[in-house]
Amino acid sequence: MFEQITIIGVGLLGGSLGKAIKEKKIARKVVGIVRRKQSIKEVLSYKACDEVTLNIASGVKDADLIIIATPVGKIVPMVESILPHLKPNTIITDVGSVKEAIVDLAQEKCQGKALFIGSHPIAGSEKRGVNASSADLFKNTVCIVTPTKKSDKTALEKVISFWKKVNASVEILTVKEHDKVMAAASHLPHLIAATLVNSVFKQKKKKIEKFVGGGFKDTTRIASSSSKIWLDIFQSNQKEVLASLEIFKREIEKTINSLKHHKWQRLNSLLKNAKTSRDKVK
Amino acid sequence: MFEQITIIGVGLLGGSLGKAIKEKKIARKVVGIVRRKQSIKEVLSYKACDEVTLNIASGVKDADLIIIATPVGKIVPMVESILPHLKPNTIITDVGSVKEAIVDLAQEKCQGKALFIGSHPIAGSEKRGVNASSADLFKNTVCIVTPTKKSDKTALEKVISFWKKVNASVEILTVKEHDKVMAAASHLPHLIAATLVNSVFKQKKKKIEKFVGGGFKDTTRIASSSSKIWLDIFQSNQKEVLASLEIFKREIEKTINSLKHHKWQRLNSLLKNAKTSRDKVK
Repeated sequence: MFEQITIIGVGLLGGSLGKAIKEKKIARKVVGIVRRKQSIKEVLSYKACDEVTLNIASGVKDADLIIIATPVGKIVPMVESILPHLKPNTIITDVGSVKEAIVDLAQEKCQGKALFIGSHPIAGSEKRGVNASSADLFKNTVCIVTPTKKSDKTALEKVISFWKKVNASVEILTVKEHDKVMAAASHLPHLIAATLVNSVFKQKKKKIEKFVGGGFKDTTRIASSSSKIWLDIFQSNQKEVLASLEIFKREIEKTINSLKHHKWQRLNSLLKNAKTSRDKVK
Repeated sequence: MFEQITIIGVGLLGGSLGKAIKEKKIARKVVGIVRRKQSIKEVLSYKACDEVTLNIASGVKDADLIIIATPVGKIVPMVESILPHLKPNTIITDVGSVKEAIVDLAQEKCQGKALFIGSHPIAGSEKRGVNASSADLFKNTVCIVTPTKKSDKTALEKVISFWKKVNASVEILTVKEHDKVMAAASHLPHLIAATLVNSVFKQKKKKIEKFVGGGFKDTTRIASSSSKIWLDIFQSNQKEVLASLEIFKREIEKTINSLKHHKWQRLNSLLKNAKTSRDKVK
């Protein structure tokens, strides 16, 4: 399907992509670009790429498809720095959890130089690094692809086929739809988990960790993620995340209200609605 | 340690207790009391008790220790209905997630007739029923025991030893401390998970379930629990749960505020604090 795919940033997502590309033979060669010298050996030892380099220019020059798997805030700067080194019609995509702030700008920079298509595979875990990577990471997951009016049709088709080949099911959304949906489905839960941890540890400072059970653990697991990566996401999707939080605040006020005034039937409806909705998710 | 232990309500917790008692030989005989005829066969087939009966009087009359493993709202009524059938000095305990509303009343009813000690093993899962029971359910868990000034010392010691024998580690709290700690560590996360589901499904009604990832799934898993059981808990611990919710609301306002006004350093501190606290929990 491709002669060479280059992955920039070979962590959990980048490493899993490398393994999947090799396993499914989607490209003849997979090149990884990493930042630290010690990562070269690591990526090779996990067989996540065929070649690994620190040199951006040499890593991208022969690529037909480039996948940028860096944190959200570094994607557009990375697009800028690779552009001078590409051959014509190179396709660039990314895996960022935010799309409007990235795609509009990246597309503008690429104008006449490369073909940018935004992607967001909804995969990953609280684990990080190439050591946690797996060729099966994208199995049974959804990858959102976000074309715009300016997107090249052939590049779009190739990016869609690519995600299908690594076993993701593809959904097409506009960048705005994507950011709205993700603010609710992913960014909001993250902020709520962090806020919940802070308020639980506020209420009983003395060794509350002894008394938490499976419910607290599940509910707050993602609060252990990297604050740096998430701050980046909240900054890039500030408007939609704020809108989600405001909706959540109105819902929490309903919950407080029914508890405060012993409106048990109303509280029961809230709990039942939540169960019905949650049961739709496997 | 005991001649006969009787377990009232043989679901996940009751069934696991029966199996653990048999495995550790804590009693010569374990009797289960169930409500539905078909449960008799089921409990026996899972080897969770030696004998099972629908008859409360005959099930409790020879017991040295009775463990009430029914939903929270049924514990005190159950204490009342078994009292006329007990031999002297029978010890009664429970597994309820709320303690003040249960222990004060149960102790009063038992005055001169039986010895009541409140317990709350922090164990369980979103699974239910004797088919999910396991002798190892209490391994590496904490059981809170909540004596009062009126508690019989020998009965208290026996209940503590009992929980240690099933491999729980025992913490002693007053009923008020228990209810405060559990409001924060367990009841609050439950309400937040349910409220989160409702607000996420409100924001994008059209098939949001397609776009949720591991973060949402973990964070909201407990929203699939039985609304009936939890309504019971919120009613019984209304005051403390409300206090926890108010603290949470103040924290969510801080989060909203820092996002709204681009106070990124402050938001970063909130995320970092949450990570530090959450990392304390295994």
